[in-house]
Amino acid sequence: MAPKIEYVTGQSWYNHFVSYGETDTMGVLYYAEYLHIYERSRSFFIREHGMSYAEVEQRGIILPVREAQSRYRVPVRFDDEIFIRVGISEWKRASMKFSYEVWNIEKSILHATGMTEHAAVNSQGKPVRIPEWLKELFV
Amino acid sequence: MAPKIEYVTGQSWYNHFVSYGETDTMGVLYYAEYLHIYERSRSFFIREHGMSYAEVEQRGIILPVREAQSRYRVPVRFDDEIFIRVGISEWKRASMKFSYEVWNIEKSILHATGMTEHAAVNSQGKPVRIPEWLKELFV
Amino acid sequence: MAPKIEYVTGQSWYNHFVSYGETDTMGVLYYAEYLHIYERSRSFFIREHGMSYAEVEQRGIILPVREAQSRYRVPVRFDDEIFIRVGISEWKRASMKFSYEVWNIEKSILHATGMTEHAAVNSQGKPVRIPEWLKELFV
Amino acid sequence: MAPKIEYVTGQSWYNHFVSYGETDTMGVLYYAEYLHIYERSRSFFIREHGMSYAEVEQRGIILPVREAQSRYRVPVRFDDEIFIRVGISEWKRASMKFSYEVWNIEKSILHATGMTEHAAVNSQGKPVRIPEWLKELFV
Repeated sequence: MAPKIEYVTGQSWYNHFVSYGETDTMGVLYYAEYLHIYERSRSFFIREHGMSYAEVEQRGIILPVREAQSRYRVPVRFDDEIFIRVGISEWKRASMKFSYEVWNIEKSILHATGMTEHAAVNSQGKPVRIPEWLKELFV
Repeated sequence: MAPKIEYVTGQSWYNHFVSYGETDTMGVLYYAEYLHIYERSRSFFIREHGMSYAEVEQRGIILPVREAQSRYRVPVRFDDEIFIRVGISEWKRASMKFSYEVWNIEKSILHATGMTEHAAVNSQGKPVRIPEWLKELFV
Repeated sequence: MAPKIEYVTGQSWYNHFVSYGETDTMGVLYYAEYLHIYERSRSFFIREHGMSYAEVEQRGIILPVREAQSRYRVPVRFDDEIFIRVGISEWKRASMKFSYEVWNIEKSILHATGMTEHAAVNSQGKPVRIPEWLKELFV
Repeated sequence: MAPKIEYVTGQSWYNHFVSYGETDTMGVLYYAEYLHIYERSRSFFIREHGMSYAEVEQRGIILPVREAQSRYRVPVRFDDEIFIRVGISEWKRASMKFSYEVWNIEKSILHATGMTEHAAVNSQGKPVRIPEWLKELFV
């Protein structure tokens, strides 16, 4: 399937099995758990580009979430295997956006889409320009 | 403080202490945990209007989340006591929106705002019109 | 109901409503969520004695969990209101145990019991003797 | 490293990266999150034996947790890659125990050990004898 979102970088596919603890009384993946999975998938994306988010922080750049959004289309159930397509959808001067698509294993059903916007701040919490090394990492 | 959001109903104030398990390595309330707290606050809102969400479901109306969004402004830390203002911000034919504001205890700092959009579906999962008794509950 | 556990201090009763996000596909409170609730109840216990766990840490004493245990007897469901009896069940030289009982609102059904053992360490992570002021806090 | 626990079956090794959302203000994997990871690792163990826990349930056997226990030895931090050794440590007539060891990637540091005891019940929640096909699955 073609991406449902316009990305400005390449994308990774993060693989995940839905656990019991992530589901709720309706028998589906609980809505807040998508944000955990989005976090896991963006860490995976960064690792696939040869760094870890822990290393990004050690270089003095912290990327706190300023906004998160998720659209839930088709529920996911316990033990379902899902794939999350993840990439960067926007670079701004001092912030960036990651976008996410949650697909079934055959990549025929789009379960959900999501977005997280991150500020770039230094270790004192001051906003800083997105460093070039970070942009180049994801080209 | 005046509401930062236009509500179409009255609002409730839900009180919450931030637990250790809700925080992360940055020492702040983790971004996905806000969605748990939004859920707690809307259940509280429904209870304050004389029903429980479990009862709403027993009457055959389920309100699955179609979209969730949160804007993070000022971090919240372990053991902080926060107040969540919660109310309904929009009625549509077959859906509704709850909105949320996360304030400090003095209600002088707005930590975050959020929104959840809910479809109304019956027990077979079919979309239905928002019933009048539900609307009247929150007037 | 009499306590099912031998406590060496008085006890507090912590009140909790089970949220959707805490339940699983079986429709019951997920087993790991009890440990979150135990943490909330012991913070509540400390607050009821005039301090907060954050203050305990500011005084240089950290109480990391060394062991946790929970026995699940009768499931708890979404929207159930529960009461957790919490107190200290053992003082050792450099550690202490909290114990927990999860009761229904009428305090007629014992849903679960639990225990957490905590080391006392200083801010460098070194084990230290339990300070007298901490013991006296809970007498 | 040799297993620290006596298992009555072979064991699987489940691989996990610690996410931000699993850590707490101390910068370490939060104690309740171990129980989520134990659940993930036992689902993985069952899958490695050619079935899924969802299929076990479809065959009419549910394995609710009756008791859980975890011993925390050496903290795990954000982005750490860990391996969980998982296997069955005891068969009883109508219950079974899974045991867990959390190791670092080199398998030189034992971070934690854990145990979960599961009853075998049918779809009406009645205790039943552990079926032979379940035992044979793990031989």
